[in-house]
Amino acid sequence: MTRPLAFDTAPWSIGLAGVDPAQLAHRESVFALSNGHVGWRGNLDEGEPHGIAGSYLNGVFEHHPMPYAEDGYGYPDRGQSVINVPNGQIIRLFVDDEPFDVRAGRTASHEQRLDFRDGTLRREVEWTSPAGRTVRVRSTRLVSLTHRAVAAIRYEVAAVDAPVTVTLQSELVANEPMPEPHPDPRVQEALHKPLEEADRFVLGTGATLVHRTRESDLGVAVSMDHVIAAAGERTPTTDTATSADLARTTIAAELAAGERLEVVKFVGHEFQHGLSASGLRDRAEAAVGDAVRDGWQGLISGQRSRLDDYWTCADVEVEGAPRLQQAVRFALFHVFQSAARLEGRSVPGKGLTGAGYEGHTFWDFEGFVLPVLTSTAPEAAEQALRWRHATLDHARARARQLHLAGAAFPWRTIDGTESSGYWPASTIAFHLNADIAAAAMHYVRATGDERFEREAGLEILVETARLWVSLGRWDADGGFHLDGVTGPDEYSAIVDDNVFTNLMARQNLVGAADAARRHADVAEALGVTDEEIGGWSAVAAAMAIPFDERREVHPHSAGFTERARWDFEATGDDQYPLQDHFPYFDLYRKQVVKQADLVLALLFAHEAFTPDQKARAFAYYEALTVRDSSLSAAAQSVIAAEVGHLDLAADYLAEVATIDLDDLHGNTEEGLHMASLAGIWMAITAGLGGMRESERGLRFAPRLPEQLTRVSFGIRVQGHMLRLDIRPEATTYRAVDSTPLTVWHFGEELLLQPGEAVTVPTPPLGDPGPRPTQPRGCAPRDFEAAFGE
Amino acid sequence: MTRPLAFDTAPWSIGLAGVDPAQLAHRESVFALSNGHVGWRGNLDEGEPHGIAGSYLNGVFEHHPMPYAEDGYGYPDRGQSVINVPNGQIIRLFVDDEPFDVRAGRTASHEQRLDFRDGTLRREVEWTSPAGRTVRVRSTRLVSLTHRAVAAIRYEVAAVDAPVTVTLQSELVANEPMPEPHPDPRVQEALHKPLEEADRFVLGTGATLVHRTRESDLGVAVSMDHVIAAAGERTPTTDTATSADLARTTIAAELAAGERLEVVKFVGHEFQHGLSASGLRDRAEAAVGDAVRDGWQGLISGQRSRLDDYWTCADVEVEGAPRLQQAVRFALFHVFQSAARLEGRSVPGKGLTGAGYEGHTFWDFEGFVLPVLTSTAPEAAEQALRWRHATLDHARARARQLHLAGAAFPWRTIDGTESSGYWPASTIAFHLNADIAAAAMHYVRATGDERFEREAGLEILVETARLWVSLGRWDADGGFHLDGVTGPDEYSAIVDDNVFTNLMARQNLVGAADAARRHADVAEALGVTDEEIGGWSAVAAAMAIPFDERREVHPHSAGFTERARWDFEATGDDQYPLQDHFPYFDLYRKQVVKQADLVLALLFAHEAFTPDQKARAFAYYEALTVRDSSLSAAAQSVIAAEVGHLDLAADYLAEVATIDLDDLHGNTEEGLHMASLAGIWMAITAGLGGMRESERGLRFAPRLPEQLTRVSFGIRVQGHMLRLDIRPEATTYRAVDSTPLTVWHFGEELLLQPGEAVTVPTPPLGDPGPRPTQPRGCAPRDFEAAFGE
Repeated sequence: MTRPLAFDTAPWSIGLAGVDPAQLAHRESVFALSNGHVGWRGNLDEGEPHGIAGSYLNGVFEHHPMPYAEDGYGYPDRGQSVINVPNGQIIRLFVDDEPFDVRAGRTASHEQRLDFRDGTLRREVEWTSPAGRTVRVRSTRLVSLTHRAVAAIRYEVAAVDAPVTVTLQSELVANEPMPEPHPDPRVQEALHKPLEEADRFVLGTGATLVHRTRESDLGVAVSMDHVIAAAGERTPTTDTATSADLARTTIAAELAAGERLEVVKFVGHEFQHGLSASGLRDRAEAAVGDAVRDGWQGLISGQRSRLDDYWTCADVEVEGAPRLQQAVRFALFHVFQSAARLEGRSVPGKGLTGAGYEGHTFWDFEGFVLPVLTSTAPEAAEQALRWRHATLDHARARARQLHLAGAAFPWRTIDGTESSGYWPASTIAFHLNADIAAAAMHYVRATGDERFEREAGLEILVETARLWVSLGRWDADGGFHLDGVTGPDEYSAIVDDNVFTNLMARQNLVGAADAARRHADVAEALGVTDEEIGGWSAVAAAMAIPFDERREVHPHSAGFTERARWDFEATGDDQYPLQDHFPYFDLYRKQVVKQADLVLALLFAHEAFTPDQKARAFAYYEALTVRDSSLSAAAQSVIAAEVGHLDLAADYLAEVATIDLDDLHGNTEEGLHMASLAGIWMAITAGLGGMRESERGLRFAPRLPEQLTRVSFGIRVQGHMLRLDIRPEATTYRAVDSTPLTVWHFGEELLLQPGEAVTVPTPPLGDPGPRPTQPRGCAPRDFEAAFGE
Repeated sequence: MTRPLAFDTAPWSIGLAGVDPAQLAHRESVFALSNGHVGWRGNLDEGEPHGIAGSYLNGVFEHHPMPYAEDGYGYPDRGQSVINVPNGQIIRLFVDDEPFDVRAGRTASHEQRLDFRDGTLRREVEWTSPAGRTVRVRSTRLVSLTHRAVAAIRYEVAAVDAPVTVTLQSELVANEPMPEPHPDPRVQEALHKPLEEADRFVLGTGATLVHRTRESDLGVAVSMDHVIAAAGERTPTTDTATSADLARTTIAAELAAGERLEVVKFVGHEFQHGLSASGLRDRAEAAVGDAVRDGWQGLISGQRSRLDDYWTCADVEVEGAPRLQQAVRFALFHVFQSAARLEGRSVPGKGLTGAGYEGHTFWDFEGFVLPVLTSTAPEAAEQALRWRHATLDHARARARQLHLAGAAFPWRTIDGTESSGYWPASTIAFHLNADIAAAAMHYVRATGDERFEREAGLEILVETARLWVSLGRWDADGGFHLDGVTGPDEYSAIVDDNVFTNLMARQNLVGAADAARRHADVAEALGVTDEEIGGWSAVAAAMAIPFDERREVHPHSAGFTERARWDFEATGDDQYPLQDHFPYFDLYRKQVVKQADLVLALLFAHEAFTPDQKARAFAYYEALTVRDSSLSAAAQSVIAAEVGHLDLAADYLAEVATIDLDDLHGNTEEGLHMASLAGIWMAITAGLGGMRESERGLRFAPRLPEQLTRVSFGIRVQGHMLRLDIRPEATTYRAVDSTPLTVWHFGEELLLQPGEAVTVPTPPLGDPGPRPTQPRGCAPRDFEAAFGE
């Protein structure tokens, strides 16, 4: 294992000094820029060296075959993989006749810095060529939050101490190779140079490349133009040329010592199914033209203004651990930019920061990321939910294929069709349908967006409710069971009555019935009858929730607590993740938990458990949970806080906060884990803040671990803003620009008047009992080790 | 669906008149010849047309990649497929200048006949060429039971009414295409022309081709020579030539009307890992030389004598249904020839009659075929068991990979390594280990072969016993459980305490303890201690056998009877087999049975059930069993007979007896189902004969269904022969060449003196209650419909 990168701990940005060519991929993910439409990894401007080159458009993918040693009914025969779109990041620099390359010459200084308020990635380098010429390069790049299709780079090179000729090759490069997502050569063949040239154009100081994917039949246009802002005394020369996979504008200038060449590169990105090459070109060039007219300062101002607006509510202040403060803002920044301009598309598991998981979206988007967006950027949340709604036809077709009613959303997908090759951990993880429904319900409750509910939310609820009714069975005693499913924990597949699934399905059914009654006209148009609504309520009321009376704990699923315990003592440190070292059947039949499942239910369906049940369940599952998934630590942190183990909550918070910054799972190079970034916010708001939704308003139970002296966070509620300021001894609640708002502080009702700060003391913490223990070697990261100076 | 082929109903052979070029593949399987080393499908001598060309050597296979959409720990990365060895069947005939081809000219008559006593496939054709020349072709082919490596054809062509020039091209053809076993092009690429030329030789009127497989690195030599037995007046000309994939001897003769050319072609087959080309050549040519010296009549006599010897004991006589009589002998002939010259190799699921299942061996060989061989050709049974023993190192390595002790035999294999790509229906079907152990124990009990037990049997028992101990868990109440396994029924995978598995494991453990005590010196050398033996006994005694007290029936596995019933009424006739129309998860979580599982336990572990339990279980599972597997009908027939439903037993017997002859599963073209052929014998001996092993000797309970007037069968016991002659009112027992033998007739002890016939009456049959019903559309074949005139 390589040493983690030594990022600084600035409060509003993250910087890294130096450049190690062997450790680029991790930083490229950390420094990625995106707006939910375009994503650029933080590759060095000159393109080389790079860890993983990445320029993505949300929704641009290619199909590939899905191979099976033994095929089965309902197995998807076609997979999907995100592909690189033509890369507009590249500005190659030549100093006299030598290429600027950090592997050659001497790099006196090198810094990259991602700024959370500016929405830019800045770079400063002082470099001396092998021939002894020294230049200072400064670049600032952004993916625009105000111009959906646009990314831009201001690139400046200055001659330090002697005259030099500098030449820039500003490029669009198509069909850059990507990491192979699968060892099968058929898959690789399908994804090798996936873009076929459709057309290319040169116009002035810019050019446009139009390509088309072979199987998914998407047209992609990427356009660039350049504005030369400064160039020393003499006019630089420019020239633009194209070939099938390359557009290049060459800008050459002779600089005296102290002079600089400054170029702004504007790149526009569009894609569409079924649009002509010229149509695509026009759209991409229009985007570039708009941006050029707005100018670099316009783009910069737009970033700042959009982010100021975002941070006004979303900011989380943390006192007591500077690195945690940075990590929280880092997470919120990435979550926001992954979704800022979704416009009816999903957020992949890695956002647009890498090609990990083939660019697929999973249930953890709705489960983890959407609540953050709903509370901090609800317009983005709506767009993502509208994407799910738009895929309902695919989900209905999948349900029919499985001989089920309603809709069965895919486990992993880009375009809404199922793209998963192992059914025990995908097809039957039906809980994802309830997770999506829950996200829609939460969005409506938090925003009051009735139009969304009528246009999209209700249909999602109705179709998922229908799924549950068709999926389950009635027993002789009137209980309703969901057999043969897989919950969030992938180390226990094909189980009966997974408590998480059943509770979430129950919420789904109740929510569908409620919404259908509230919007009877829409429901009727969806074919919903009173009888059907009654059926949902009946199923919800009869839903089996297994409970182990002997151990006084909820089993993860029926019979789980009777299973053999995994032999953790005999498991070596090098045998994690377990799925890489043990066969599935052995994991499935034993008590071992990959990721919070019952513990996630304690959060997502918190009203179904008594405080005592929560405490007992948390302790029980702590001893079984190995956290082979990045989705686990956040939920464990939240429940640890709820049951009073604040030191443990802090440790889990430290872990979730550093998963990507310290590359704890060893795969951040493939992109940031969006759900665990969202989990940092969850661990703070639902964990330290104790925030829970209830029928009667938001409930809080704020407590800080001893390492923190203050935590403040804001959320949007019904279009207004609520801010909490938590200190060890008391919490101040403030409703900004709001009508009066009722919240609950440790069960006590508070009526917040607009603008008024209400401070209430923290009640004393009872004895939570001994700190729960984890399997050998599976204790969470220590807070001090992660954040100590 | 095409009409079944209209085979005749001769008692000692099976013949088919006419030739439909569109329906060749089925007949090729039915008419296949084999001796367990060489297998020739019943392709027409001239090679064309053919359904599926097939010439196999038992053990010659090629590796291929195993593709997975999502890989997992312990998944085999390399598959195995049987390949065609150079085909020596081909004798192309030219009549004057026209090729003999049943698709051209006029075929006045055509008959093929497989003779069960002669061990030959005969063919007679009268054919008139498009030019009007008429010839009569007679061929007889055999795969020698006395010369392991040899197959031979006597080919005779006669000029009927006018002089003709006849030319024979007698060939060896390598790399003939085979059906593609998998859609993945990587698999196909690996199996495309799998034989690489190593060397080739011409010697007199014959030739030898030596090839090598690329990945499995097996050398294969096929040699031929010819003896011209008659050729009209004038001496024929001969010429032999070879190329990489072809050896051809051309024999031309001018025949006057009424004259004939008669050629005997001897073909020798050898293969070996790590032998030189010349070494292989010498072995193949030596085999041919031996056969030539023995001569055609020598081969023919050898067949007859070996088969006479076999039939002396093995023959089953059936009166009342001529087609059933034929089907039983057909089955016994194929089972015998599949194993006659195994010499340390296995019998594939399709024998050597086709390339179905990629030529793999499965547990049903030990479960179904081995008992037949043990009772009728014990020396072949021993050879097959020694093959399993020889693969123990592979099985031990597989167990270690799965973190288990002892040995885990493969679900499907050629060389002893696992070659299965879907673990829920393979890796965890651990019962196969107990099935193998049971076959070994049965062989030892039936033959008294102590040498085998000491050299091989005990080690199999010990290593499988170790597997069970490591696989299971103890519960708090001292019960022992086998969680997360799959039993024989593939529609209920990943279950706990599958009754079949647990009962078979218990037998395995008891048998291992018993054998280890009897052979303490061998056991000690295997590292077995008294403590370990005690552990086996303790586990056996504690083995959980679930029972549903409410329904008074054994569940297939823990909780099975609580599951939802499959909705058979809603299932269309065109939705079988269910696995092709419904997802696995839905099959797994419901009460629906692909193939006898608990019902198979009623037979394989018959002493664990009371008669009442058997009757209740049989009725219960009849209503759930859809028989999507050819392995089911035989067991259902046996238990139907035991519980007194003789009419139902007869129907299941009719079904199992016609699975291949009438191609009931639509895949006989890929080869005969050896286990269901063996099942015919099982349905007669264990079903109608009521034969069961017990501590105190063989037990019988013979009863005939009303359609049959007499059934007689013989079995070998301890090197001697016992014959039963069953008539409706009484059964005659006769011990031939034996010391006195104790058997049980309906619970009554009979001491049989050598040579003496003891006739005992059949007790009256009590009321078995109403005939159990099957799911809609899943009733067995009707006896009258299958066998009526």
